[in-house]
Amino acid sequence: MNYKMIRYIIGMILMAEAAFMILPMLVSLLYGEYEIIMPFVYSILLAFGTAWLFGIKKPKNDLVFARESYISVAAGWILVSVFGAMPFYLSGAIPSFIDCIFETVSGFTTTGATILDTVENLPKGILFWRAFTHWIGGMGIIMFLMMLTQFSEGHSLYIMRAEVPGPSVGKIAPKSTSNALILYGIYSVLTVAEAVLLLFGGMPLFDAVTTAMATAGTGGFTVRDAGIAAYNSAYVEWIVAIFMVIFAVNFNLYYLMILKRFRLAFKSEELRVFLAIVAVSTVVMGISSANYYGGFDVSVRKAFFQTASIISTTGFGGVEYMNWDSICHAVILLLMFTGACAGSTAGGIKLSRVIMTLKMFRKEANRLAHPHEITTIKFEGKFVDKETRSFIMVYMSAFFVILAVSSIFVMLMGHDYETAFSASLSAFNNVGQALGEVGHSGNFNVFNGATKLFMSLLMLTGRLEIFPMLILFMPSTWRKH
Amino acid sequence: MNYKMIRYIIGMILMAEAAFMILPMLVSLLYGEYEIIMPFVYSILLAFGTAWLFGIKKPKNDLVFARESYISVAAGWILVSVFGAMPFYLSGAIPSFIDCIFETVSGFTTTGATILDTVENLPKGILFWRAFTHWIGGMGIIMFLMMLTQFSEGHSLYIMRAEVPGPSVGKIAPKSTSNALILYGIYSVLTVAEAVLLLFGGMPLFDAVTTAMATAGTGGFTVRDAGIAAYNSAYVEWIVAIFMVIFAVNFNLYYLMILKRFRLAFKSEELRVFLAIVAVSTVVMGISSANYYGGFDVSVRKAFFQTASIISTTGFGGVEYMNWDSICHAVILLLMFTGACAGSTAGGIKLSRVIMTLKMFRKEANRLAHPHEITTIKFEGKFVDKETRSFIMVYMSAFFVILAVSSIFVMLMGHDYETAFSASLSAFNNVGQALGEVGHSGNFNVFNGATKLFMSLLMLTGRLEIFPMLILFMPSTWRKH
Repeated sequence: MNYKMIRYIIGMILMAEAAFMILPMLVSLLYGEYEIIMPFVYSILLAFGTAWLFGIKKPKNDLVFARESYISVAAGWILVSVFGAMPFYLSGAIPSFIDCIFETVSGFTTTGATILDTVENLPKGILFWRAFTHWIGGMGIIMFLMMLTQFSEGHSLYIMRAEVPGPSVGKIAPKSTSNALILYGIYSVLTVAEAVLLLFGGMPLFDAVTTAMATAGTGGFTVRDAGIAAYNSAYVEWIVAIFMVIFAVNFNLYYLMILKRFRLAFKSEELRVFLAIVAVSTVVMGISSANYYGGFDVSVRKAFFQTASIISTTGFGGVEYMNWDSICHAVILLLMFTGACAGSTAGGIKLSRVIMTLKMFRKEANRLAHPHEITTIKFEGKFVDKETRSFIMVYMSAFFVILAVSSIFVMLMGHDYETAFSASLSAFNNVGQALGEVGHSGNFNVFNGATKLFMSLLMLTGRLEIFPMLILFMPSTWRKH
Repeated sequence: MNYKMIRYIIGMILMAEAAFMILPMLVSLLYGEYEIIMPFVYSILLAFGTAWLFGIKKPKNDLVFARESYISVAAGWILVSVFGAMPFYLSGAIPSFIDCIFETVSGFTTTGATILDTVENLPKGILFWRAFTHWIGGMGIIMFLMMLTQFSEGHSLYIMRAEVPGPSVGKIAPKSTSNALILYGIYSVLTVAEAVLLLFGGMPLFDAVTTAMATAGTGGFTVRDAGIAAYNSAYVEWIVAIFMVIFAVNFNLYYLMILKRFRLAFKSEELRVFLAIVAVSTVVMGISSANYYGGFDVSVRKAFFQTASIISTTGFGGVEYMNWDSICHAVILLLMFTGACAGSTAGGIKLSRVIMTLKMFRKEANRLAHPHEITTIKFEGKFVDKETRSFIMVYMSAFFVILAVSSIFVMLMGHDYETAFSASLSAFNNVGQALGEVGHSGNFNVFNGATKLFMSLLMLTGRLEIFPMLILFMPSTWRKH
């Protein structure tokens, strides 16, 4: 095992985080919040110092294979969460360190579940850091580093694979550096576009920027206690909902559009399924909540917002879905499971996995009925090879086993089944909202310390799509080979 | 497709059912319940007449492949449930026909969930038929037919595979006729042994026989409203619990013991895991319910009984587990998932699948970390081939997807999440007891008609291990090939 490279990659990740924290510090300076400048300075120095200890000089042997990649990404994300929690802790914004960890993990994993009962009394610098963790975590910290450097000639794909959501990493450009640049470019342009449109709607600049960052990462933190409803504007709700849908689409499709290959982009099977689910869910929830809102104009908007919020795994507060019919709760639970498109910033199982899984059920039933026929499955017009098929099935089984065990763990902590199950699913799929005791506030403060730490691990495991975490904690990884 | 053979097999299945119904009719005669003789006669004639319409002459071309086997077994089980419901309906024992269907499906699938609030006022003939459906369904109606006839030279394995639980069908004897004889022989001897031991404990003959049949099939119906607790005897509880464990073990192991190959039998990985889980669950629940019972002697017995009852998917009433700690509920949910050994009469995912699934997670994580290493998995000392591995993963994913969709369906019917989830899991894995509104009574009368029919389908799908039902209802099955 190339320990030096693992240390180097983790060092680079922490270095990047130290750099990221300069921005919220400047925001604090801008808003005259001098009392939290020093907490940021200490946090930056702590992350930078640790990075320096890990070693910031690239080792001569820079070859990393799968194992090293998964380990460094998984360990990197854990450490980023610990160091990212420092501004919350040192500034006193969140008194309990476990809560700080939970909030930071929830930020970076773009879950958006919070332990704060109110956010409106927090300093702007802290609120900015909270939203910024969403933006960083959405596209990924490794992806950010990829823009600056290529970790090792030809093996960067392993490292990317550990962080990019979805069953396969689409190769846009021949070099991963260009790849990362293109993706971050699209991501930044879309974020700015949303912020500008929100400003047009009369949203204050600070709110527009933080909301855009939270939408981009499909996170869910806002700077108002009432969430998006605080702005009391149908225009704002539409804009945010539309952008939640936009950020839930595979970014490769935007690249295809830039290349003017619209036909190819719109032919995407996953995109069509995604749009169909959004449409059906909006109609179902719009009709069934029409009575509650006294009219379709409001109920359709709320239903579209809530659909976009859950399927994109953003989980913005502001819709009173707990008062809706139980049919809406069933729809919400289904959307929490699937999530949106692979290669987007959304969490969840991803629709491409769901589609392929259903195709495999049909295929397997066919194969049982006709053992001598050769059955294959196609996705996005291409045959799905055996390796991918088998890995998706393993992924799905692992997903459900972890979900079942987590629900039972939370039940053991004394919560009812609805809370335990929906909160575990919400954390694991990085949604942020849940049912039962958590409700539409997405407030996870109902849980005790052990459950919060468990949920933090669950969020990280979900964000990195299970296996990097599994590999990090598996004894056989550390055995000599 | 060999439609003639499908019709023939279904005909034979109904013929067997008609013959089976003679026994409860004789019981009625014996107990002087003359008013239910005619309902039984009509039911027998109805099943026999339908069988005759289906055709009872073996077609010249008796070759059946996988597809025909799955279709006839799935359709056969559905029809057996409809015709088996007739005695309940025609005798007026259960007024609603949907309830009759539910009760019969629950019997044949050995679920043991009931819609009856009281059973003690029912005629003995009806109670016998209820218990007898467990006994027939436990080892299987196809397996019974196999004793009498070989459906088609060399292809019987397909038909057996559709009914016998577990990832693979163990071939004991070279001919499936002998195979079925051996299994039914062991099954009958063990049933008689339990009945005799219960008689020694002072149980009335009728109760001993019906209880033994319900234990053998790992069903759960009793002839007393208070379940096994009605006998108020620690001896009875121990005997029933021990036999629930016995019937939850792979029957091939008993055959090995008959052949005096004890070492081989006890080397079974699945058996060891099974016994370990039983021991750990008993200890955990025994300790945590000690306060409730005021002493370990009672609590350990109750914990062992409940562990055996759930892991064997019998679900006998008589233990007040709803009053136990939430840790016990978590253990019960876990046991409901796993079920017991493949090749037993127990339902559930089966431990062999659980073990192989966990091994595959480790393997897949290893393969990701070391893409160029060849990793294999072993189970029961043998390498598990690719086909089996891939099928288990598909099975697990299908299991959880169906479970999630079912829970959400039951939620839509206005039940809380705990009820919806635990009742779906209970029906799907043929357990019979659940949590929430269903509680330890295992009474599914809280559900409406649509939900009961849905649950009936779920029980059948679970009993036949998903794919036969899927194949029956898949349009592509019926397309010309």
